[in-house]
Amino acid sequence: MTLHVDPERLWSDLMTLGTIGALPRGGCDRMALTDSDRDGRNLFVHWCSEIGLRVTIDAMGNTFARREGSDPSLPPVLAGSHLDTQSPGGKFDGPLGVLAALAAVRALDRAGIVTRRAIEVVNWTNEEGARFAPGLMGSAVFVGATDLAAAHAVTDRAGRTVGEELARIRYAGDAPMRGRPIDSYFELHIEQGPELEAAGITIGAVTHSHWSCITDVECSGENGHISSLPMLRRRNALVGAAKLIAEIDRIGRAAAPAGSASAVVIDAWPNNRINIPHRAVFSYGIIHPDQDGLERMQAEIEAATQKVAAETGLSFTTLLARRREPVHFTEELISLAEQSARDLGHSVTRMRTRPAHDAFNMLRVCPVELIFVPCRDGISHNELEWSTPEHCAAGADVLLRSVVQRADR
Amino acid sequence: MTLHVDPERLWSDLMTLGTIGALPRGGCDRMALTDSDRDGRNLFVHWCSEIGLRVTIDAMGNTFARREGSDPSLPPVLAGSHLDTQSPGGKFDGPLGVLAALAAVRALDRAGIVTRRAIEVVNWTNEEGARFAPGLMGSAVFVGATDLAAAHAVTDRAGRTVGEELARIRYAGDAPMRGRPIDSYFELHIEQGPELEAAGITIGAVTHSHWSCITDVECSGENGHISSLPMLRRRNALVGAAKLIAEIDRIGRAAAPAGSASAVVIDAWPNNRINIPHRAVFSYGIIHPDQDGLERMQAEIEAATQKVAAETGLSFTTLLARRREPVHFTEELISLAEQSARDLGHSVTRMRTRPAHDAFNMLRVCPVELIFVPCRDGISHNELEWSTPEHCAAGADVLLRSVVQRADR
Repeated sequence: MTLHVDPERLWSDLMTLGTIGALPRGGCDRMALTDSDRDGRNLFVHWCSEIGLRVTIDAMGNTFARREGSDPSLPPVLAGSHLDTQSPGGKFDGPLGVLAALAAVRALDRAGIVTRRAIEVVNWTNEEGARFAPGLMGSAVFVGATDLAAAHAVTDRAGRTVGEELARIRYAGDAPMRGRPIDSYFELHIEQGPELEAAGITIGAVTHSHWSCITDVECSGENGHISSLPMLRRRNALVGAAKLIAEIDRIGRAAAPAGSASAVVIDAWPNNRINIPHRAVFSYGIIHPDQDGLERMQAEIEAATQKVAAETGLSFTTLLARRREPVHFTEELISLAEQSARDLGHSVTRMRTRPAHDAFNMLRVCPVELIFVPCRDGISHNELEWSTPEHCAAGADVLLRSVVQRADR
Repeated sequence: MTLHVDPERLWSDLMTLGTIGALPRGGCDRMALTDSDRDGRNLFVHWCSEIGLRVTIDAMGNTFARREGSDPSLPPVLAGSHLDTQSPGGKFDGPLGVLAALAAVRALDRAGIVTRRAIEVVNWTNEEGARFAPGLMGSAVFVGATDLAAAHAVTDRAGRTVGEELARIRYAGDAPMRGRPIDSYFELHIEQGPELEAAGITIGAVTHSHWSCITDVECSGENGHISSLPMLRRRNALVGAAKLIAEIDRIGRAAAPAGSASAVVIDAWPNNRINIPHRAVFSYGIIHPDQDGLERMQAEIEAATQKVAAETGLSFTTLLARRREPVHFTEELISLAEQSARDLGHSVTRMRTRPAHDAFNMLRVCPVELIFVPCRDGISHNELEWSTPEHCAAGADVLLRSVVQRADR
């Protein structure tokens, strides 16, 4: 018997969840630990409880819905992703992985199958990092990569902490975190890029990730009156930042399609209409498949920084905020996902991921595989993010088949 | 008998006031209606009360310290400026004009002179507009150019209103505002530019102002994931803003020394490290002595906006937030200030002002003159802003002589 998820129910769940924090152009705003995030979690917990799953919540708000196996002493297979979104975000980035895992559990119920190992559907807290930086936060604490107290102390721009907001939305629990044995972790996600769609392939069995870094840049100039400071003596920190941001864009375009580089965050001081800004801070991210490529782009941006500094008389300080080497998923699980797709008659390719996922963190504690389905035009972190019912169901079926085989070991 | 202010006391007062909201490099942060602004006001009121001036406060917190004349029925001569500062600001921009007027009153006390008309020392609320935009707010309401309720409703970035903050610092009074007859208004200020210092001249008798405008620009792009959105499909609103900010700087430099143009404020959305910004908003200011010059620069920036839009595929909307034609001070008072300087043996020149001052608003209700003294390197709105005890005293003496002659009419 070939198991399938109920494609209509999966799509209905995605669209239903998408009404929570809904935005006018079709997307969602459910930033981590907001009221809308709470409401999305509540709906997920309700659906899990309806079918008898045992729901536990840990001190980071990570939520686990367990379907017991025939041997409860064995470590469980976990499958899931995250329900929080960017602002604005879409309906698929995150929810698909959680709701597909729930759909898989429902399919087992319908078929009357009890797996040897328990299966747990998981929702990780604050994958996006849109409100509380950095992202992948809940899974990072779960695997011991980040300290719980440090994560609880992270503040948003309004000064509220993760710990306060977890308590406020009532998702600060006491389920065990690091040290709990996990058999394996599977995550289904939209690709968030254009490759599967362009190649007409339904399933991506993700092998490894890219090289990437985020750098913070501070440009320092001098305050002055916008009306009276002579033009040729202005040392406008915003102009220095602007010139470097344009250079970073040029360097990113020259490295396309393999590489990319973009400035994404900016703040200036004193940021009023009367004063030449004396300080401007921005961040940029680079991503490239190869270490050489990443380092070449870094060097080009460093040279551009020195050129802008020399041209403008402004000074720059840069801080490498984060550098990520590629993570490699578990060959046994990559093969399992690939074979599951073939068994189900879906086209499949091995591929790399550009974005980071909670799956990266889970590699610290167990074998992991990340499964991709296409999304329209490669658009994500955008209200227009879209996948099709057919692709979502195909991905959920591959997830189901992989999870069951693993859980029956 | 030639009247003089006490130069040591004036300097001492400037340095004493400068301890309130003092910053490490020698400047001050006393943004309007903050605790530090309140403390600076309290010190000023204390000094006025010490010498028997009658202090009244209006509903905008504008504060008047009156030295009665021999004919109390005649409209008074006003002299003053503002005690609030930029953040960071200096010790002179604002306080010099208030404390020099106070020094003038003290000189009359010492000499036992009673003028025919009353003299009032005035501190205008929120000249700077650094916290609550726009600036020149207190004087604008006083003369009826701005509605009181509208001014009270203005919010800072934290959402607090002018009205709430006036009540909180206890400077919401009930002295009469518009309609009160005023004989004339004099304001002493540092030049905030380099011309007097470069020419070695002590006093500037200000004749009129420049053409200026402030424009708000919104650049619209599309959200996307910083790691996965293909580089050549990115429509990064921050890159569009950055390219135009660099163009505006280039256009400003080409128009120097007469003209200037600078971007000064920026905000981007969603402003996190994970997303290509879909929206960036900034403001720029242009100033030029001539209408033709201003309009030529506006046209160049408009052409640059269209060029950047075409290059990047981003869209721009611009809104002219404010356009100021030159104001012209009162010839009779310009001549009076000029003659006073000559009588006192100070070098003097007629000149134009680039920055706007409360004196601009006062032209709506009475004859007005603005008097400048040099400041070091033309630096203002900066902790390094500086004038000398000699220049401050010379300006105060010219103010004293002009005010007394006007008050004795």
